[in-house]
Amino acid sequence: MAVGACFPKGFAAGVAACGMKRSGKADLALLVSDRPAAAAGVFTTNRVVAAPVTVSRAQVQTGTAQAVVTNSGCANACTGSAGREAAWTMVRETASALGIAPSRVLVASTGVIGRPLPIDDVVAGIHGAAAGLAGTNGRQAANAIRTTDRFPKLAQSQVELSGGRVRIGGMAKGAGMIRPDMATTLAQVTLDADVPHATLRRILRQAVADSFNAISVDGCTSTNDCVFMLANGASGVTVDGARQLRILTGAVGELMLDLAKQVVRDGEGSTRVCVYTVTGALSGPEARAAARGVAENVLVKCALHGGDPNWGRILAALGAAGVHLDPDRVAITVGGVPIVDGGEGVEHAMPDAKERLSKDEVEVQISLGLGAGHATVIASDLSPDYVHFNSAVTT
Amino acid sequence: MAVGACFPKGFAAGVAACGMKRSGKADLALLVSDRPAAAAGVFTTNRVVAAPVTVSRAQVQTGTAQAVVTNSGCANACTGSAGREAAWTMVRETASALGIAPSRVLVASTGVIGRPLPIDDVVAGIHGAAAGLAGTNGRQAANAIRTTDRFPKLAQSQVELSGGRVRIGGMAKGAGMIRPDMATTLAQVTLDADVPHATLRRILRQAVADSFNAISVDGCTSTNDCVFMLANGASGVTVDGARQLRILTGAVGELMLDLAKQVVRDGEGSTRVCVYTVTGALSGPEARAAARGVAENVLVKCALHGGDPNWGRILAALGAAGVHLDPDRVAITVGGVPIVDGGEGVEHAMPDAKERLSKDEVEVQISLGLGAGHATVIASDLSPDYVHFNSAVTT
Repeated sequence: MAVGACFPKGFAAGVAACGMKRSGKADLALLVSDRPAAAAGVFTTNRVVAAPVTVSRAQVQTGTAQAVVTNSGCANACTGSAGREAAWTMVRETASALGIAPSRVLVASTGVIGRPLPIDDVVAGIHGAAAGLAGTNGRQAANAIRTTDRFPKLAQSQVELSGGRVRIGGMAKGAGMIRPDMATTLAQVTLDADVPHATLRRILRQAVADSFNAISVDGCTSTNDCVFMLANGASGVTVDGARQLRILTGAVGELMLDLAKQVVRDGEGSTRVCVYTVTGALSGPEARAAARGVAENVLVKCALHGGDPNWGRILAALGAAGVHLDPDRVAITVGGVPIVDGGEGVEHAMPDAKERLSKDEVEVQISLGLGAGHATVIASDLSPDYVHFNSAVTT
Repeated sequence: MAVGACFPKGFAAGVAACGMKRSGKADLALLVSDRPAAAAGVFTTNRVVAAPVTVSRAQVQTGTAQAVVTNSGCANACTGSAGREAAWTMVRETASALGIAPSRVLVASTGVIGRPLPIDDVVAGIHGAAAGLAGTNGRQAANAIRTTDRFPKLAQSQVELSGGRVRIGGMAKGAGMIRPDMATTLAQVTLDADVPHATLRRILRQAVADSFNAISVDGCTSTNDCVFMLANGASGVTVDGARQLRILTGAVGELMLDLAKQVVRDGEGSTRVCVYTVTGALSGPEARAAARGVAENVLVKCALHGGDPNWGRILAALGAAGVHLDPDRVAITVGGVPIVDGGEGVEHAMPDAKERLSKDEVEVQISLGLGAGHATVIASDLSPDYVHFNSAVTT
């Protein structure tokens, strides 16, 4: 996705307004490569999946794609056979507008569940977007896929490999119905390196694990989530050897973490980003479960919102996380200030800890003292605005 | 516990103000039987447990108790060896004040985690409460164990067995940090039947499964939860045979469900009680997991607060519950009005469904169409007041 000019090479985007957003703003984005690209995707683990997820899961199997068509304002989820037909129509019309094979088109939707997709308006939008493709449309595309997001989510970076410079771009959307352990939200990442699709899949899975799968706004899993990655080789750079692959994987991971953090910062009602790191767990999965158990605990999230270092709630959340735990070995710091040592509160540290909790981004480090397992989860706080907002949304 | 006069027989209560509540109101309750009673208890499944839980778990093993001492305003949790010593002191001083063996005393605490128990004031309170025991102190005791509760939670009933009338009483506390799958909150149930303690344990476990373990306010598990049941035989009625036992178990279950529902109705910020019943799951545990997955979903709770029959959120929550699911077979009703049929929304029913959701208590019936598993979970809504309240509580 090009944020600035022609970045990465060979990718362009177009947008259109199809009337699914009441505001009349653009609600369709077309991301296109000038040549076939290796493609990989990860999808929601929810057992209720939207029609575009079913379609794109099938399409991405070939490992090659040239376009992604995304609409916002309507999830095309729980819409039955008419919804599946609409998703396939989006694929066919995109292929037709671009003059490429339908097998090379991926599709994604986001918005309200259960409403029928206004397919005629969407088809018109696809052709309009295809007519206005430009390498400088990154921000427009990121805006077109927004729903409740307060700001567009974009990232770009570049990495020098032995064969030359590779550019990476990405966009994401999401502010609610966000939880780890799946490809949360929609995100699309492009790079102009030449990468075999099997390798691209491995890069994507690793990057997702530590970025989109490590965030939570409200612990709610969506029916529509998917992350796509396309590598079109337009830079002429191939990725040779394990070291080059590590460098590229690291750069993709950093970019996706950047996008994932933007999603948390834009979390509905969110006022604060909290990075929970658990060390000393019996295993990696236990560390992840402990970090999630704390990060998603409603009372901890309320305390975080209030800037309150309420360590009793953190301990209670750990105790309910279903992991091995010896409370007497637990140590917790907030922004580097120790608030729990040996399972008991460090009372004199509370004023310092409170001050650290007043910042926009806060690090909570939890040491379990049992083993070598570690994990990080990034979560928002829970504010009255989240509840106000989500009580007012109508079906 | 006697709500009115001498009900059930042989039980009495006393209260005292020890200064743990800033309001100066009573914060200690003593529940006493005039003779040794069969005793059973269930405790929190949290791995971080308060000192009184450790002590009472050991004490209840004998199957006999004569007194329960409970304080509010201080959880005596995460207080180390001093906390454990304080809990044992509460046991010893209660025994001394009543002239009974220390092995016959159970202890419970509720309130803020991590603060030391002001043991000297508590000891004075124990002796004061013991000096003022009365069979008519049920409401005073229920008030003394309140923390953030808006109202005291009491229930009483009676059941005719072949041997005569048996009276049952109960009290509970709790409004936050409430979730199923354990002995949520504090509750104490008394009956004047003669029941062997092994039988009493079975009755308690069965009653808890469908009452306190089937409710949720915020999905947060406490360090201090315990439910005690005492049967002192003062009615002279013994429970003979399976049919009598079934009648008594049913009556205890109903009374505990009554108390558990009071906890949900008093849930912090709660404006509505929602009863989620899942049928047609592959198994009972899957039904329970599905009901919990929906009942504890933050977006569903917000929709419930807004009186919005947002069936897309319910389906998405089912899809994330980790149970077998065929979305096309799912049917959902709200207050009897069908809102989902065959996995799709019943749009014309939405106005009716909205109207049903405006009531104080709402039934959501979810049919999965896969098997015979069924379960019910009772949960509150999520309001901005919950977040306001829990952001303002200080450590």
